[in-house]
Amino acid sequence: MATERVDNLAGERRKAEFDVEAMKIVWAGSKHDLDVSDRIARLVASDPVFGKDTRTTLDRKELFKNTLRKVAHAWKQINELRLTEEEASRLRFYIDQPAYVDLHWGMFLPAIKGQGTEEQQAKWLPLAYKMQIIGCYAQTELGHGSNVQGLETTATFDPQTDEFIIHSPTLTSSKWWPGGLGKVSTHAVVYARLIVDGKDYGVNGFIVQLRSLDDHSPLPGITVGDIGMKFGNGAYNSMDNGVLTFDNVRIPRDQMLMRVAKVTREGKYVPSDVPRQILYGTMVYVRQGIVSDASIALSRAVTIATRYSAVRRQFGSQNGGPETKVIDYKTQQSRLFPLLATAYAYRFVSEWLSSLYTDVTQRLQANDFSVLPEAHACTAGLKSLTTSITADGIEECRKLCGGHGYLCSSGLPELFAVYVPTCTYEGDNVVLQLQVARFLVKTVAQLGSGEPLVGTTAYMGRAEHLLQCKSSVQNPEDWLNPDVVLEAFESRAFRMSVDCAKNLAKFSKPKEGFSELSADLVEAAIAHCQLIVVSKFIDKLKQDIPGAGVKQQLEILCSIYALHLLHKHAGEFLSTGSLTSKQVALANDILRSLYSKLRPNAIALVDSFNYTDHFLGSVLGRYDGNVYPKLYEEAWKDPLNETVVPEGYHEFVRPILKQHLRMARL
Amino acid sequence: MATERVDNLAGERRKAEFDVEAMKIVWAGSKHDLDVSDRIARLVASDPVFGKDTRTTLDRKELFKNTLRKVAHAWKQINELRLTEEEASRLRFYIDQPAYVDLHWGMFLPAIKGQGTEEQQAKWLPLAYKMQIIGCYAQTELGHGSNVQGLETTATFDPQTDEFIIHSPTLTSSKWWPGGLGKVSTHAVVYARLIVDGKDYGVNGFIVQLRSLDDHSPLPGITVGDIGMKFGNGAYNSMDNGVLTFDNVRIPRDQMLMRVAKVTREGKYVPSDVPRQILYGTMVYVRQGIVSDASIALSRAVTIATRYSAVRRQFGSQNGGPETKVIDYKTQQSRLFPLLATAYAYRFVSEWLSSLYTDVTQRLQANDFSVLPEAHACTAGLKSLTTSITADGIEECRKLCGGHGYLCSSGLPELFAVYVPTCTYEGDNVVLQLQVARFLVKTVAQLGSGEPLVGTTAYMGRAEHLLQCKSSVQNPEDWLNPDVVLEAFESRAFRMSVDCAKNLAKFSKPKEGFSELSADLVEAAIAHCQLIVVSKFIDKLKQDIPGAGVKQQLEILCSIYALHLLHKHAGEFLSTGSLTSKQVALANDILRSLYSKLRPNAIALVDSFNYTDHFLGSVLGRYDGNVYPKLYEEAWKDPLNETVVPEGYHEFVRPILKQHLRMARL
Repeated sequence: MATERVDNLAGERRKAEFDVEAMKIVWAGSKHDLDVSDRIARLVASDPVFGKDTRTTLDRKELFKNTLRKVAHAWKQINELRLTEEEASRLRFYIDQPAYVDLHWGMFLPAIKGQGTEEQQAKWLPLAYKMQIIGCYAQTELGHGSNVQGLETTATFDPQTDEFIIHSPTLTSSKWWPGGLGKVSTHAVVYARLIVDGKDYGVNGFIVQLRSLDDHSPLPGITVGDIGMKFGNGAYNSMDNGVLTFDNVRIPRDQMLMRVAKVTREGKYVPSDVPRQILYGTMVYVRQGIVSDASIALSRAVTIATRYSAVRRQFGSQNGGPETKVIDYKTQQSRLFPLLATAYAYRFVSEWLSSLYTDVTQRLQANDFSVLPEAHACTAGLKSLTTSITADGIEECRKLCGGHGYLCSSGLPELFAVYVPTCTYEGDNVVLQLQVARFLVKTVAQLGSGEPLVGTTAYMGRAEHLLQCKSSVQNPEDWLNPDVVLEAFESRAFRMSVDCAKNLAKFSKPKEGFSELSADLVEAAIAHCQLIVVSKFIDKLKQDIPGAGVKQQLEILCSIYALHLLHKHAGEFLSTGSLTSKQVALANDILRSLYSKLRPNAIALVDSFNYTDHFLGSVLGRYDGNVYPKLYEEAWKDPLNETVVPEGYHEFVRPILKQHLRMARL
Repeated sequence: MATERVDNLAGERRKAEFDVEAMKIVWAGSKHDLDVSDRIARLVASDPVFGKDTRTTLDRKELFKNTLRKVAHAWKQINELRLTEEEASRLRFYIDQPAYVDLHWGMFLPAIKGQGTEEQQAKWLPLAYKMQIIGCYAQTELGHGSNVQGLETTATFDPQTDEFIIHSPTLTSSKWWPGGLGKVSTHAVVYARLIVDGKDYGVNGFIVQLRSLDDHSPLPGITVGDIGMKFGNGAYNSMDNGVLTFDNVRIPRDQMLMRVAKVTREGKYVPSDVPRQILYGTMVYVRQGIVSDASIALSRAVTIATRYSAVRRQFGSQNGGPETKVIDYKTQQSRLFPLLATAYAYRFVSEWLSSLYTDVTQRLQANDFSVLPEAHACTAGLKSLTTSITADGIEECRKLCGGHGYLCSSGLPELFAVYVPTCTYEGDNVVLQLQVARFLVKTVAQLGSGEPLVGTTAYMGRAEHLLQCKSSVQNPEDWLNPDVVLEAFESRAFRMSVDCAKNLAKFSKPKEGFSELSADLVEAAIAHCQLIVVSKFIDKLKQDIPGAGVKQQLEILCSIYALHLLHKHAGEFLSTGSLTSKQVALANDILRSLYSKLRPNAIALVDSFNYTDHFLGSVLGRYDGNVYPKLYEEAWKDPLNETVVPEGYHEFVRPILKQHLRMARL
């Protein structure tokens, strides 16, 4: 970026009070991660095939073809440059356009690895790795999303031919949504109810070939297509989310994924030694990836809004001088800086989740399932929390850019549209928080029973203290003490869980109580998840963090993250008696001064994400802040500007102006 | 609708406990309004030219041409069917596609009416009414949105030729955003700084011809075009928001809008008898329309989410029976029903705003400006509150529809994309609340000074009581008493304003204090605006409302509206000491039981909006609830499904599968 000639933000950059290069390493995770990301991001940015400029003006077919082209070019580059798996994955990431390969690498391959036997892996994985077959993950149906156990597609064993008959018995059993299914995938892992000898063994995975490897036409009995336009101009419309129905399609018996259970030649259903819980490991893995993606999506939106806020000026001109930068308004800061802090907070909690996943995997391999419920609840809750806040946060960043944020050239509309499905897929966010709540209530019920409190519920071990403690805060600065913050969050979260447990106890039927109080339960679960994020941020700050001023900035961000939540959820801190009104007001006071402290570092803190202008895809978020000339330039590229007089003028406008309307064919 | 054959929601409709036809009249405002709306909505729905089905798959140019076609057809219909002005306006509304005519009728004409002299009106209005000219409203510039006084375009009087020279001195002075400007308008009301004899008289309006009436080409000195793609697929991309620069364009002196001030032949600037405040009347008018539109947009999204929630089933199947309708889950109810109540609340507050406008207009005509500051603050605040909540509410409704809400065929992505600019245009929502806050703080400062408290600030007259009162709530049912609710909202709002005033007093420079505390000030302003909405809903219930059960339903909705706000902003009610934790918890208890009461009426309450399927434009929100077959049918219409093998397969997919990549041209 050093070669940019214009740098309208140079003055902002000079104000930074910390070592930006050191912060880049903290954000990336390591020097190695930063180097790989940086190199691959530049590679993508410099390749015209990966350009994103015209994306929002393409119609569906053009966009889709453009996506196929990018995928093929990427595959060629990966092979020609002999990229490592890590580099290849970064390359796909920086192309920044949803495509069928995402599902091939992200769901199809992992499903076979996780649920296939060794023989099955030996047969299918090499084909998939070389992309001699392209696969997707066909679980969701038209009528069944969250409730996987309710899927209707059947896989009936036929002992005569040693095959399974895959069938869609109803309209609602049509597979619906799988990415890559609509137009590209040759194969799918299909989830269907296993029926053997009339008995229903529940949902299992099957490898099914969908299309001919010769001419790509659907195989007999298979009806497959795209499900149509989705939110946004480009966004997920580059993906062929598909619909699929089976009319008694036969597959060989050995295409059932048989790691945890198999069907024998004789038609016997035999569970294997491998416990089913092993499958939950995958869920933890996928969801920690989603949390990591949340921090990226949010940081991206925040970068755009922060840079533009330091360019945009409005009001406050004195004696004909320049107007005030909007980033200098406290209203702007109080909306923007908490999101900046949240991006960092999510980055660190995802880092921690990734280590949790490693830990869980090792334990599962040693047949230790003790931490699984807690790890599962924790990742489910964090997936829900971080994606909800990120989706809203992107839209908030768009609003922080005023009118110009509404232009596609701002990059924010597409970022929002491409991000929001995350709130629904891999577990609807409300359904997930209810799972967390169920786990919390159970944990509360077992307090004192001797059941060990693992991981993120350890704080509940100090039940008595947390129910009685009074916060020691007397001055605004007291809120800068992490222990004080932590205790307030622990007390609030615990008391909310306990209140829920108490209120549930009033119902004679627990199920009815759970249903009736579900909105409160969700709030308790969110409080618990916020505590996790706060505590992991605080833990991060206990580590050795090199770089001049870096830790100080992170401390400010950590305080802003925690205290803006405290302000936002003041009602819960107050009504649980965790804090007094005075203490809440003091938190608000210190928050304002933290915004002022952060202000000179704002641009450097978003520079630390190290995003290229290509990846940001935003005129407003340009590194050089050269916003207005580029906005103006960009406008003229719209197809409507190809002609001065628009198509349709002679047919539909001129007859009005000339009062000739009755003669016109309309 | 009675002729629909399928009615999956018939069972829901039978459960209704009130007279739906009577409620339709309440929602529409009168029997006459209902009849007109109903007739015109059906007219539009039955006309194939006005079809919306393929809208999201059209590229920009096709979409734009399609819009021109609809506008011309509408104009033809309006003339042929001799529609009244009211009917014509309804017709444009139900076409439901942003178009240049919106600005012609909604901004260009009113600007001339409001700011033109009688002679100017006599000259220009007939041309505009007959659409012999088409106009737009060119105010916003690339560098200047909220701060109208900062506009840079100049209009310099040339006494030699008796002309104004309209000029764009900088890039940032380019007009940017005006709808209808980009490709269609022949004329514009242009806002520019009036310069006479070297003196800057501030921003004034000028009528400027932009394009030739012969061949539609831009006139000399004028550069004009479209500013490019905006959020969403169809959405506002049917509108030619434009960019416009002037290179010393000359217009006759009499094209300055001279109602409040004129420039004489001799080059003298002369203010007229008409006070400038008269212009604020227009602002009140435009903003009350925005509040009314908010209730419509929100009710539309709520209709879709409510109907689909009564169709969608997930989990809870017992003994193989059907799963539970998602509308029966308390988590769904606690998100959906408050939005339903909010739609009604906004409807009634907009009805009241409309009467306020009539009152203000009459007073202005009688040179009584006393109510203007209050009316201005009130409409600014309500514009801000209702549009923010509506934008978020539409997105919440989309999420309430799960994955399928992400499909364009759900109608919700487009509704969101087309709605969100409302949060920014006609006053950025945060800037507006700061204006309200300024007014509130001033009002508090004048308490006891004898200044009369008008309109929505009258409650502040009971200052002492509101600062001391303790809510009498002891049982959940106490919250059903409107007086109790009102007092809690008044106490909270007033105490927040007073707290702000107190904190401001601590600063030696008021301006600095206002800036530093602006985030708190915005919260106080919102509390005040919420109080207005609650109080107008309560006022509405004091009126005579005919129809079996209608008033009872509205009472439930009113309670839900108020109490969900109380729950959401519990921190403010608690920290101001307006309520105790116990009272807040009781409000939450009664809220749950209100959801249960509302549940059987939910479908009938959205039926009462009387929206056609055409207007809703949503497969999920269909009147007949026949969702799944239609979703399936809709999918196949996507352009990607025109061929079984997608374009680009041979070039970009097959080479990967066949490992022929190196040979392919990529």
